[in-house]
Amino acid sequence: MRISEILDRKGTQVATIRPDATLHDVLRELEQGGFGSLVVSTDGRTIEGIVTERDLVRVLAQRGASALDGDVRSTMTASVVTCGRDATVDEVMGMMTNSRFRHVPVVEDGVLAGIISIGDVVKSTIDELAVKAESLESYVTGTY
Amino acid sequence: MRISEILDRKGTQVATIRPDATLHDVLRELEQGGFGSLVVSTDGRTIEGIVTERDLVRVLAQRGASALDGDVRSTMTASVVTCGRDATVDEVMGMMTNSRFRHVPVVEDGVLAGIISIGDVVKSTIDELAVKAESLESYVTGTY
Repeated sequence: MRISEILDRKGTQVATIRPDATLHDVLRELEQGGFGSLVVSTDGRTIEGIVTERDLVRVLAQRGASALDGDVRSTMTASVVTCGRDATVDEVMGMMTNSRFRHVPVVEDGVLAGIISIGDVVKSTIDELAVKAESLESYVTGTY
Repeated sequence: MRISEILDRKGTQVATIRPDATLHDVLRELEQGGFGSLVVSTDGRTIEGIVTERDLVRVLAQRGASALDGDVRSTMTASVVTCGRDATVDEVMGMMTNSRFRHVPVVEDGVLAGIISIGDVVKSTIDELAVKAESLESYVTGTY
C-alpha cells in the first residue's frame, strides 16, 4: 500500500505552527487538536522543523515550567525525515522503527502535502489484514 | 506472531510509578527513561492505572504548570485495557487502532508481565516482512 492511499482517506491537512510561537502555544494546539506533533512552518507550505509532545516532556523535565516561555525554534527538531506520496507504508514503517519517530511529514514538489502518524500505519496494516481475511473467507466458502 | 515472542526479545520489565507520586515525578521518569507512559502501581505487580505523555500535555494545557504538583491518581486512566501473553500482535494492533492507545500492558495471572508499545507492534510487523522477503528471495534464487 502507498502513502497516497492513506492520504486520500485521511486528508492532506497538517497542523502547523510558526517557529516564533511559544511552547505554551504548542501545548494548547496539541491539546485542542488531539495531535502528537506539529510541523513547524512560517508559510504552512515549507517545513522548517517538527515539534512533538515528547519534546515538551523533555524540555519541561530538564528546564521546568519556565521553558514553556521559550520559542518553538529552540526546541523543534530542524532536520526532519520526510517521505513522498509514492512511498510505501512498509518503507515509512521502517523509517519510524529505525529512527524511533511517530510522525513522518509527506512532501510533494518541496511543499508539505500531508503527515503520516504511527497510528495511521498501524491502521492501514489492520485494514489490509481485514481485506485479506475477507477475500480468503470468500474463497473458502465459495462466495466468489 | 504472539505477544510472548515480543516480550521474549524486549524483556518483561515495565516502568511503574506509585499513585501518590506527583506529575513532576512522572515528567522526570518519562524523560529519563525515554518512555511514553508509566503503569501506575503501588506494588509494581498490580495495575491501578496508566499515565502517558499525552495526559501530561492535556493537564498542562488545561490547568497550567501548577497541575504538575497534583498526584498521579488524579490524572491517570484507571480503566486500563490489557492483553495476555498469548494475544496475537494483530489483536493488539486492533485494540490500539480502535481505542487510540499507544501502550497495552500485558497481564499474566493478574500480575503485570510486560508492556507493548505501538512502536513494538510496528517493529514486529517490519521484522515479519523482512523474514517473508528473505524466504521469498531464497526461493526465487534457488538457494534453499
